[in-house]
Amino acid sequence: MYQLYIANKNYSSWSMRPWLVLKAFNLPFEEIIIPFPLERNTGTFKQDILAINPNAKVPVLVDDGLMLWDSLAICEYLAEQHPDQALWPKDVKQRARARCISAEMHSGFSSLRNACGMNIRANLADVGKRLWRENEELHQDVARIEQIWSERPNMNGFLCGEFSIADAFYAPVVTRLMTYALPVSESTRQYMQTMLQHSALQAWIDAALQEDAWVNYLDSYQQQPL
Amino acid sequence: MYQLYIANKNYSSWSMRPWLVLKAFNLPFEEIIIPFPLERNTGTFKQDILAINPNAKVPVLVDDGLMLWDSLAICEYLAEQHPDQALWPKDVKQRARARCISAEMHSGFSSLRNACGMNIRANLADVGKRLWRENEELHQDVARIEQIWSERPNMNGFLCGEFSIADAFYAPVVTRLMTYALPVSESTRQYMQTMLQHSALQAWIDAALQEDAWVNYLDSYQQQPL
Repeated sequence: MYQLYIANKNYSSWSMRPWLVLKAFNLPFEEIIIPFPLERNTGTFKQDILAINPNAKVPVLVDDGLMLWDSLAICEYLAEQHPDQALWPKDVKQRARARCISAEMHSGFSSLRNACGMNIRANLADVGKRLWRENEELHQDVARIEQIWSERPNMNGFLCGEFSIADAFYAPVVTRLMTYALPVSESTRQYMQTMLQHSALQAWIDAALQEDAWVNYLDSYQQQPL
Repeated sequence: MYQLYIANKNYSSWSMRPWLVLKAFNLPFEEIIIPFPLERNTGTFKQDILAINPNAKVPVLVDDGLMLWDSLAICEYLAEQHPDQALWPKDVKQRARARCISAEMHSGFSSLRNACGMNIRANLADVGKRLWRENEELHQDVARIEQIWSERPNMNGFLCGEFSIADAFYAPVVTRLMTYALPVSESTRQYMQTMLQHSALQAWIDAALQEDAWVNYLDSYQQQPL
């Protein structure tokens, strides 16, 4: 059985992606949470994750002694291990597109990721309003994401047809758009609804809402826990 | 036949990666160079690339009307189209490792990439000396790269055995370490030598040295062309 090492579900967007893939495709796995320290550079997070991964980051997938430490490589590995299931779309063109948009998320959108850290349980609509006024690069990132999402083959469906790794890669954006209440198009809202109805994303969000650890350096927009 | 759209070989490290893969595995392709403008926001680069790729970036691979716009996704696509050749290593563990380190390069090492832009024909040893004194994050990036390279299965060989996509992903680092003359270990030098003897990398470097376009915003360490 796979072991997936992740950090707090409320905050860790990179943990979320392979977890959603495992869950959505019913691949059996053991989840091991290594929580972020409440204050930066305190606690045992670093030692705990270093014992698994010399790169000191989550997520990590371990499969029978083989350790993978990058979210996209983990998903490619899972796709390869389960060729009977369409972790990537079966259609070659949609698969190529799914890989392009997943890789684009993997390396890009730093303005959105930096300004709007994932924080599922928070309501940061006021912060979002201010960021939207002040941060031009945030606009560009959201515009590009809305463009990508608008190109899904079926407006009632997922990014490349059925739910795939590509949707898992954009799932944290769905929660960020909610947390920061950024203004988006009707088509974008429709995709968000489609995603929010998926049982894997619901399970992640439910678990995030049950966490109570307040990690101050990831929650810098709030003076105190809600 | 594939079409690969790239920018200047002297400067464009992302163009270099899929080009090396196509070349190293003898996959027939037409190379189309869209040169960077000499001054930022001048010339027709943006219109030219927008006509191919709405994301306005190189490299782009076109295969019979199908357009891929991300270097890692291009390489995955090529690997899938040519299963008879080991674009990724044949061994499952080395393949998992190759994907992890390629994805890590794809999303990381921003200090090295920002401070030491690729510039094959330049000799920036003095700049490198200064950066090495001043830039702690550059040290961390180089240390992590040296760690990854030191874990290659055979010290006389490539990162994951035979030449693979992973080597193509780290090839621009080989030229950067030379251009900026950063201090590295004997083992790192040995890998650089192995890479510099590969005919695909030699062909790229030779072509870069023949370019004479001097792109001022990518050549900010030099007051004028050499």
